Amino acid sequence: MLSTDHLISIKELQRSDLELIFHTADEFKAVINRPIKKVPSLRDITIANLFFENSTRTKLSFELAEKRLSADVINFSSSSSSVKKGESLVDTVNNILAMKVDVVVIRHSYPGAAHFLAKEVQARIINAGDGAHEHPTQAILDAYSIREKFGTLEGVKVGIIGDIIHSRVALSNIFCLQKLGANVVVCGPKTLIPKHIRSLGVEVSHNVDETLAWCDVAMVLRIQLERQEVSYFPSLREYRTYFGIDRQRLEKVGKDLVIMHPGPINRGVELSSDVADGPFSIILDQVENGVATRMAGLFHVSEKIRK
Amino acid sequence: MLSTDHLISIKELQRSDLELIFHTADEFKAVINRPIKKVPSLRDITIANLFFENSTRTKLSFELAEKRLSADVINFSSSSSSVKKGESLVDTVNNILAMKVDVVVIRHSYPGAAHFLAKEVQARIINAGDGAHEHPTQAILDAYSIREKFGTLEGVKVGIIGDIIHSRVALSNIFCLQKLGANVVVCGPKTLIPKHIRSLGVEVSHNVDETLAWCDVAMVLRIQLERQEVSYFPSLREYRTYFGIDRQRLEKVGKDLVIMHPGPINRGVELSSDVADGPFSIILDQVENGVATRMAGLFHVSEKIRK
Amino acid sequence: MLSTDHLISIKELQRSDLELIFHTADEFKAVINRPIKKVPSLRDITIANLFFENSTRTKLSFELAEKRLSADVINFSSSSSSVKKGESLVDTVNNILAMKVDVVVIRHSYPGAAHFLAKEVQARIINAGDGAHEHPTQAILDAYSIREKFGTLEGVKVGIIGDIIHSRVALSNIFCLQKLGANVVVCGPKTLIPKHIRSLGVEVSHNVDETLAWCDVAMVLRIQLERQEVSYFPSLREYRTYFGIDRQRLEKVGKDLVIMHPGPINRGVELSSDVADGPFSIILDQVENGVATRMAGLFHVSEKIRK
Repeated sequence: MLSTDHLISIKELQRSDLELIFHTADEFKAVINRPIKKVPSLRDITIANLFFENSTRTKLSFELAEKRLSADVINFSSSSSSVKKGESLVDTVNNILAMKVDVVVIRHSYPGAAHFLAKEVQARIINAGDGAHEHPTQAILDAYSIREKFGTLEGVKVGIIGDIIHSRVALSNIFCLQKLGANVVVCGPKTLIPKHIRSLGVEVSHNVDETLAWCDVAMVLRIQLERQEVSYFPSLREYRTYFGIDRQRLEKVGKDLVIMHPGPINRGVELSSDVADGPFSIILDQVENGVATRMAGLFHVSEKIRK
Repeated sequence: MLSTDHLISIKELQRSDLELIFHTADEFKAVINRPIKKVPSLRDITIANLFFENSTRTKLSFELAEKRLSADVINFSSSSSSVKKGESLVDTVNNILAMKVDVVVIRHSYPGAAHFLAKEVQARIINAGDGAHEHPTQAILDAYSIREKFGTLEGVKVGIIGDIIHSRVALSNIFCLQKLGANVVVCGPKTLIPKHIRSLGVEVSHNVDETLAWCDVAMVLRIQLERQEVSYFPSLREYRTYFGIDRQRLEKVGKDLVIMHPGPINRGVELSSDVADGPFSIILDQVENGVATRMAGLFHVSEKIRK
Repeated sequence: MLSTDHLISIKELQRSDLELIFHTADEFKAVINRPIKKVPSLRDITIANLFFENSTRTKLSFELAEKRLSADVINFSSSSSSVKKGESLVDTVNNILAMKVDVVVIRHSYPGAAHFLAKEVQARIINAGDGAHEHPTQAILDAYSIREKFGTLEGVKVGIIGDIIHSRVALSNIFCLQKLGANVVVCGPKTLIPKHIRSLGVEVSHNVDETLAWCDVAMVLRIQLERQEVSYFPSLREYRTYFGIDRQRLEKVGKDLVIMHPGPINRGVELSSDVADGPFSIILDQVENGVATRMAGLFHVSEKIRK
């Protein structure tokens, strides 16, 4: 059983929680590769997916995970809702919970939204991304994908490359990788790396070639143009020149590197298509593992409800 | 069995219809408070939810009610539809019905939309709100919530406070409460109360303190800013001063009052947060009862199809 | 079993494929007219509906067909997706497929989108309309509806009337009707008929009265105002005068004519309401047959997955 009631941030989880989720995900990954991909595990659980921000893969991934666990699922997105009438987040969620919903999966642009809800409402909360704060299920699927490749996280060298400052994925991954014994370097232009990030115990690099030469896994992040209110680098072309990863850059490194990306990829900016679709990319494994690990997370969060 | 084929307006229902729905809702409320909240009652029924207006709680409430009855559910909202191509309401619905849909739940901004459909198409219609006309399932859940609190509606004094003129909730509630033997006063600024409302057999007050002193239940309505084309009161601040209900105003009354609100609440306008979330509020019970009473309404409307 | 892996264009199908689908649709039509309209045929299949263009009836028709086959269904529409973040179609779909989706139903404004996907991704593809190219399931349901009326397509005279140049429905129907032995005349203003259409083996007419006098079936197409970048006829009034079909025009012809329309109808433009809703119209049969034939298409496309 998990040491926490909710799945809100990696920071609050124990290493043993992560290992429990991985172990269960192994079983669910076998399930979703069988012809009949459904198990009755959450047949008596109702889950509300509340997405106050656009999302393709995360929303679909959760929805599939829930359906394969046989949960009853209701979807809610801000565009078709009373949120437009100015209703507060707590009122919206309290109303949904009064309808006897057991688990809430929430994505919200406000950092801390999931925590806030967990305090205010009577339901298990899973954070599907809260502003620039955390995105724990992404970090879990990423770590699971590395573990699948290397057998362990212990001692694996991971370079997180790109827009660290706007990325909840980066933050959750740093916490998760460290808890599991991996070594982390974050790499990007100075304007895209938070000043105090070294206090989290990671190394900082501004040279992508050095980072690639050092690491076993390059976790390339999306340049989140839509989150940038000011310009953090002169141009996409300049970003690509100094930090974009293409086959030429990888060949210079002269070793096999695992390539990851949480998607959606800006093809030709942070990652070229030949690398994204190349033999070292595990990008689509990440997506597949997303369903298996989310099934595991949902299963363990619901376990406490079911007693 | 209901005396009507559809569930379109409270005006057309008999007192015995309401009592039948309440009785069935009692059973379904027990169901949704069990660990396994599902019954197979509508396993052979297909329901289309057609929402031509935004809605959070009503849409989710119906969807949950339908899923807990094991119906097959398809959702349709105007934003993702041929309605944008200028297709008429009848064509849209006829097409959906030709796909062998048994029950249509419709919300539409046009008063009379549900009636119109019932005449034109071959399916059972449930009105989920038609313009400023009626919102019968809201009135049913409100009356059910009062009955739960007092054991009966007979002789209960209900003050409906706020924007009466734009409110389908007010109209449906007046019909419903009167059929069940409650006494109703409507209270609000002159500009928000229809001139001829006394002809419906209700008293009118423009003094909220007098209304609170009289009533057992204060049913506070939303100030529907989005429906007001002209200004009906000088400012929100002035509305709050004269009609907003907060703890201070309630303490002056000096008795226990049941507080209701159909949501979404404009917190700090018609209702303060300490009252909305206070010990006398049954606002979240209303939401929970919404699922149970809608299950009952869907069950009885479908009964005739199933013979 | 079908001769193709996917259901992308009528052009690639054999006459025997169409007959197989019709035969299976007969059985499914019986199913959806029973009180319990569900069969467990696709219980182990996951289907993603990817609609990058608005649609009412096609989307709902597929969704109902899938649910009645007991498939697991996930819906994706471009308005709530990473497509807004500029993700490529292949990335979007690859991600969905990595989540172990078996069948993709896709509607996209780009002609060739379904073909492109079939080459790039590992899943069975069903084309639900790709730009002005093809809309094969519409043609199948249309042919099935004619077969239901006449017992055969062999020798049936079909006039396709209206906007041929912007219509994927017209193109798919021409291929489908010809494969099944029907005779086709296309009729419309010169500006709405492609120059080289005679090379497909159809006759061209610009006189709707002559076409009506000749044909057994008038398949009236929607004037697709939303696809026209330039003006192809002086006014809707002029279009109606020369090509609109109303009761008066039909009475002049002096024989029984089957009237079809793929919807949504511009009532009073290409078709008057008295004809659309009249005794010779099979427009709502088309809609009903849409569900049955799509169930058949989904069943046969999935057959290969299930071995």
